[in-house]
Amino acid sequence: MFNGEKNFIFHGSDTVKLANKYGTPLYVVSEDHIIDRCTEIKESFLNKYENTRAVYASKAFLTKEMCKIVSREGIGIDVVSGGEIYTAMKAGFPMENVIFHGNNKTIDEIELGIETNVGRFVVDNLYELELLNALAAEKNKVMNILFRITPGVDSYTHEYISTGQVDSKFGIPLKEEILFEAINMAMDMEYINLLGFHFHVGSQLFENTSHLMALDILLELIRNVGEKVEFETKELNVGGGFGIRYTKEDNPKPLSYFIDPIMERIQDKCEEFNLERPKIIIEPGRWIIGEAGITLYTIGGIKEIPNVRTYIGIDGGLPDNPRPALYRASYDGVVANRMDEELVNKVTIAGKCCESGDILIRDLEVPEIEPGDILAVKSTGAYNYSMASNYNMIPRPPVVMIKDGVDRLVIRRETYDDILSREVI
Amino acid sequence: MFNGEKNFIFHGSDTVKLANKYGTPLYVVSEDHIIDRCTEIKESFLNKYENTRAVYASKAFLTKEMCKIVSREGIGIDVVSGGEIYTAMKAGFPMENVIFHGNNKTIDEIELGIETNVGRFVVDNLYELELLNALAAEKNKVMNILFRITPGVDSYTHEYISTGQVDSKFGIPLKEEILFEAINMAMDMEYINLLGFHFHVGSQLFENTSHLMALDILLELIRNVGEKVEFETKELNVGGGFGIRYTKEDNPKPLSYFIDPIMERIQDKCEEFNLERPKIIIEPGRWIIGEAGITLYTIGGIKEIPNVRTYIGIDGGLPDNPRPALYRASYDGVVANRMDEELVNKVTIAGKCCESGDILIRDLEVPEIEPGDILAVKSTGAYNYSMASNYNMIPRPPVVMIKDGVDRLVIRRETYDDILSREVI
Repeated sequence: MFNGEKNFIFHGSDTVKLANKYGTPLYVVSEDHIIDRCTEIKESFLNKYENTRAVYASKAFLTKEMCKIVSREGIGIDVVSGGEIYTAMKAGFPMENVIFHGNNKTIDEIELGIETNVGRFVVDNLYELELLNALAAEKNKVMNILFRITPGVDSYTHEYISTGQVDSKFGIPLKEEILFEAINMAMDMEYINLLGFHFHVGSQLFENTSHLMALDILLELIRNVGEKVEFETKELNVGGGFGIRYTKEDNPKPLSYFIDPIMERIQDKCEEFNLERPKIIIEPGRWIIGEAGITLYTIGGIKEIPNVRTYIGIDGGLPDNPRPALYRASYDGVVANRMDEELVNKVTIAGKCCESGDILIRDLEVPEIEPGDILAVKSTGAYNYSMASNYNMIPRPPVVMIKDGVDRLVIRRETYDDILSREVI
Repeated sequence: MFNGEKNFIFHGSDTVKLANKYGTPLYVVSEDHIIDRCTEIKESFLNKYENTRAVYASKAFLTKEMCKIVSREGIGIDVVSGGEIYTAMKAGFPMENVIFHGNNKTIDEIELGIETNVGRFVVDNLYELELLNALAAEKNKVMNILFRITPGVDSYTHEYISTGQVDSKFGIPLKEEILFEAINMAMDMEYINLLGFHFHVGSQLFENTSHLMALDILLELIRNVGEKVEFETKELNVGGGFGIRYTKEDNPKPLSYFIDPIMERIQDKCEEFNLERPKIIIEPGRWIIGEAGITLYTIGGIKEIPNVRTYIGIDGGLPDNPRPALYRASYDGVVANRMDEELVNKVTIAGKCCESGDILIRDLEVPEIEPGDILAVKSTGAYNYSMASNYNMIPRPPVVMIKDGVDRLVIRRETYDDILSREVI
């Protein structure tokens, strides 16, 4: 029975009812939250500053339905592969609003990007530049590009997801002799239209410092390329990386905390350097979808090791959320059917994978629980569904979207036969 | 053209030809190597010691074809989920030779195990014991079980894959009051037939010390339960964990290095304690399949950062092999079409994922290379195909088996439509 005090209500939906209706493990994604975030982007950025653009970094979570929501909100998407381009295309997404990233795009992927008329290629290196020009020539199309620049700024985050250092697989190093040559090459190419630059300083950031440091470097670069190679920068893509709340320890800032100083710095420098301010693009991914998602699990075996730890087994784990094992990422959770009970125990949530590293949450405070209870893990919207595997041949969970308290199935649960569907012998 | 000196020949197959025939990335698995390993198991263990049994830990790599090969070799399989049981069943695997592990088997999975008559349940905790007895009663079947015991032995390996410590999500802690109660419960249960114990001390071990330490503990336990609760142990499953060669730094030992001291220790202790020696079961997974597999990639963009590092982009990475990011695992590789050329550069192999952590190999020595060359990464047979994801919406590679120089497709390449096949809206 519905009981507003007892069950965890997520954006107007009773999570225990959702678990009963769709089974567990279950990804639940709130369209309301996504729209709220898009509204904040419009209010704090797109409508506040002219000549701006926002794109959703779709690698965080991509389905055709997600494409449609984002498109309705007037936001573009950034893609990093042929599969993401294909998904956008199948969703009827306006391809001119697609920005194509990637440190090693394959020939097939570049061709798909050209054929589908993606709005921008973010070119990572000179090999890709030459390849793109040659492949665009075959199709007699001129492709708009940005160069990805590695500004050499450290971000104060986990090494795995900090991408702005000089020693990075991504982007063109910020050395004038390399970069000026790249710009000259691009300007000479018949099927390439270079519009500007992109940089990305890291993920899950709570400070704007990295963006501002990188901007100082990039704006100086823009002045220099204007003077020395007579290239006028029309677009500057400052990436994303705006942090969200995973646990109580996280103190995310509103988008304006990043946007206003970024725009002020750009404005000031452009005035100082006597430059026309380029179009500014941001690329939030996790910031839009991260807190929109939760995952529901059913609790199974409970193992108490006296004086050591109590392990709570759940019916998912590493295959549906590899982030704790990959990044030692922390999550918070609640026992969804016991919201009115006192938190009396500290437990460790263990995934069901045959792997010691499959521990989802350490030291979570919970009420007295028993097998069959529902655990809701928060902020799983980003990099859970998109990174899920079939490890241990565990089927991937379905995705249910909720809006105004109404739920709808977006991705159905995988079956054992799905897992075996590519077997040919 | 075939050129034995120029191309990397893997177990009689030209890897460059395989890359051309099937495309890249491509998993190649040598049936010859699998059979060699099974032969070594027979010679060093099954035929040398009576009352023994070997099962393949299928979570390392499982396809129906793999089930058939293993079955032909007279080896059982261990499974850890309903999906793995289902696969074995679909392959026509003799289910009495299946051992079902897992720290949190779901009700559906336990029911599937009962229905398909798996040979052994390895029961992890008392919750599972009661559940299994109740579900077996419904089907009026008596299930053979072992208890998984946590012997409290540290293994000298990566924390994530060491599973024998007392603080573990796996198994029943080795405390007599807990364990004796469990044994008494099991002996009183109508639909449970307790046969003995299982332990697992870790993975990728190069020393036999952990197994021998754990055996001392388990054999003392076997004596004590014989005396104090009058339970006669008929089976002892000592797990797997035998290390393989990933890089030149690894010095794996022959199977006999583990087996002979293990069997000697068991024999000695059984004589000392005046016990009948139980049936001994081993569970190698990685040891059978790890070195049987390689992955072929096509090299794309090459990024040289002066005085820092050279990054070589490949057309796969984290989605087809998450182990470097998950465990900082090391791999070795060769440029498959330049085997006759001098190694003149040290490079870093970067995956194509939009993720800084997607680095496959650091400081690999290679000849002069260019885009289009084929990279073969070695020892990818275990935990690559089985852990693969669609991160970045990258399709999973096909699996080609080779035997006596003849190749056959076992798993076809995933398509973009496959990835979208579970979308319902």
